[in-house]
Amino acid sequence: MVGTTVVNRAVKKLGKQTFQLANPPVIVGAAAIVGPKEGQGPLGNIFDLVLPDTLAGEKTWEKAERKMLKDAVNMALQKANLTTKDIDFFMAGDLLNQIISANFTARDLGIPFIGLYGACSTMVESLCLGSMLIDGGFANNVAVAASSHYDTAERQYRFPTELGVQRPPSAQWTVTGAGAMVVSGTGIGPAVTHVTIGKVIDLGIKDANDMGSAMAPAAADTIVAHFKETTRQPSDYDLIISGDLASIGHSLTIQLVKQAGYDMSKNFTDCGILIFDPSQDTHAGGSGCGCSAVVLSSYILGQMKAGKYKRVLAIGTGALLSPTATLQGESIPGVAHAVVMDAHSLSGG
Amino acid sequence: MVGTTVVNRAVKKLGKQTFQLANPPVIVGAAAIVGPKEGQGPLGNIFDLVLPDTLAGEKTWEKAERKMLKDAVNMALQKANLTTKDIDFFMAGDLLNQIISANFTARDLGIPFIGLYGACSTMVESLCLGSMLIDGGFANNVAVAASSHYDTAERQYRFPTELGVQRPPSAQWTVTGAGAMVVSGTGIGPAVTHVTIGKVIDLGIKDANDMGSAMAPAAADTIVAHFKETTRQPSDYDLIISGDLASIGHSLTIQLVKQAGYDMSKNFTDCGILIFDPSQDTHAGGSGCGCSAVVLSSYILGQMKAGKYKRVLAIGTGALLSPTATLQGESIPGVAHAVVMDAHSLSGG
Repeated sequence: MVGTTVVNRAVKKLGKQTFQLANPPVIVGAAAIVGPKEGQGPLGNIFDLVLPDTLAGEKTWEKAERKMLKDAVNMALQKANLTTKDIDFFMAGDLLNQIISANFTARDLGIPFIGLYGACSTMVESLCLGSMLIDGGFANNVAVAASSHYDTAERQYRFPTELGVQRPPSAQWTVTGAGAMVVSGTGIGPAVTHVTIGKVIDLGIKDANDMGSAMAPAAADTIVAHFKETTRQPSDYDLIISGDLASIGHSLTIQLVKQAGYDMSKNFTDCGILIFDPSQDTHAGGSGCGCSAVVLSSYILGQMKAGKYKRVLAIGTGALLSPTATLQGESIPGVAHAVVMDAHSLSGG
Repeated sequence: MVGTTVVNRAVKKLGKQTFQLANPPVIVGAAAIVGPKEGQGPLGNIFDLVLPDTLAGEKTWEKAERKMLKDAVNMALQKANLTTKDIDFFMAGDLLNQIISANFTARDLGIPFIGLYGACSTMVESLCLGSMLIDGGFANNVAVAASSHYDTAERQYRFPTELGVQRPPSAQWTVTGAGAMVVSGTGIGPAVTHVTIGKVIDLGIKDANDMGSAMAPAAADTIVAHFKETTRQPSDYDLIISGDLASIGHSLTIQLVKQAGYDMSKNFTDCGILIFDPSQDTHAGGSGCGCSAVVLSSYILGQMKAGKYKRVLAIGTGALLSPTATLQGESIPGVAHAVVMDAHSLSGG
């Protein structure tokens, strides 16, 4: 451009997809609410609230889902000693047409709202964007959240649950749950130090009952970009956790990342693997926006506070499934965003 | 919090919802593609491309919509003398389950992707967020876009178009169109100086054929917040334009904003009013993500470059309609985000 000096404005950019926050915001509060099946799983006693049934006193599953989401946000605020008045943005999304759980929750909360959609990557997408807005000088406190519900998602994407359709071994179980975090410019908690924004990747998987395989290429692409651009190795993290690849997508991702020269076999797990026990008959594991939202908001942050994990790389993985697109012969593209949560500040280390 | 100094990180915040960008990014390129009906409207000769039919050589309307969106982004890049390699983020959304037009376009573009959903407010939501990410030090160039398509939207939200259901006078006509802008840290174009993020407002409208009334309260709420927090008056703008309230929502918003002490009767119009002529039988006017996307990306930016408008306040208004929520007795909440486009930099004024 003639006469114009091109200045680099992307000073926080390490590589094509990865950003290092100048003054890392901290996660000062988080909460997770789950349904009864999730409550019976291995993390059952860690969640803030386990609902007695999937309706939670509401008339429909959709209303139950948004109640969970609203309650999770309010719980996270309470733990952060903040009220809705302190929050600059509410950033959220869910799986439903058209992110109604987030929209109606925003209506009830009365906070400036930014609606997002990244399928199961939504919680990490919100966390990435919320952290960037604080670091960019736009906010002091941001509430980020995501939810899903087995019954609302299944009838929307696959079959009415009343039909009792048999699920193949590759199928994942949509988690009934809502997770929320409060990210703040000041305070005590794990810091968000890096963000890696993913591209949409599609290697041609068309089976709505094999989301893990559909998401693995996107997960691997984002993870490899993260390692390359930060010049870090898997061993620089105490834990690498995706959500929600479940068992099939998890092994596939390890293989794909290994082909790029990074060995994640020792410290890589997945929210969809952690949330259910194999005896719970969920086949490949958990999925849905709510899965990574509740596991990150409760178990992972809890382990970081307890000092077990200092530095965690969390990858939100979304299968961009649409029944309409599938009927029109399209495959299921995937997307994955990653965020580094670093607890070194907690102990001053 | 004991022992923690609370620092104000939100240095760009003027009020609860409005932000002033420190180094306003500029809109360096934009493009708009529309369908045949939009091409026959008053702005027909201004758009970059008018499709001969609503299928645009594709097998389905959904595929046609995503083709429009991809082509609009590529055209905007071309006008900005940039390629996809120069773009840090692609930020987009649309009306379809689950923003498939944006998802599949992102897959084809291969750029780090942030999926958004704000119904008809999506274009302004993308423009707000994209500008904030550049101003925050995360990007040099961002592509923002939105699309809608009469046939894909009508069959998803209301009735199969083949049914020929009679439309009430309050109904709006979903625009077939895709608009895209390239926002950059350096270059020549109107600058994005302020952003106002809206809250979700719901005064109880339940009629999916009266979206204007559903959105007007949210539009008015955001506009009034903008004036209060910037201490500006309507007369500080050469033009105030919403998208897409159409005629009913437009008059209602003027009234609601007047009650708060601001007179917008002289310089307030709407993308949904401008795009169709009353003789085109679209009743209340245009709507859909694509409506404000194409009118802002072509007509408004063109008038700013021509020197007619120096400073424009654009308000994206979204009706958060979901057929599922409506069937469950819910009303239609609205949301509105606003952005100031200032062309003073173009002439050095």
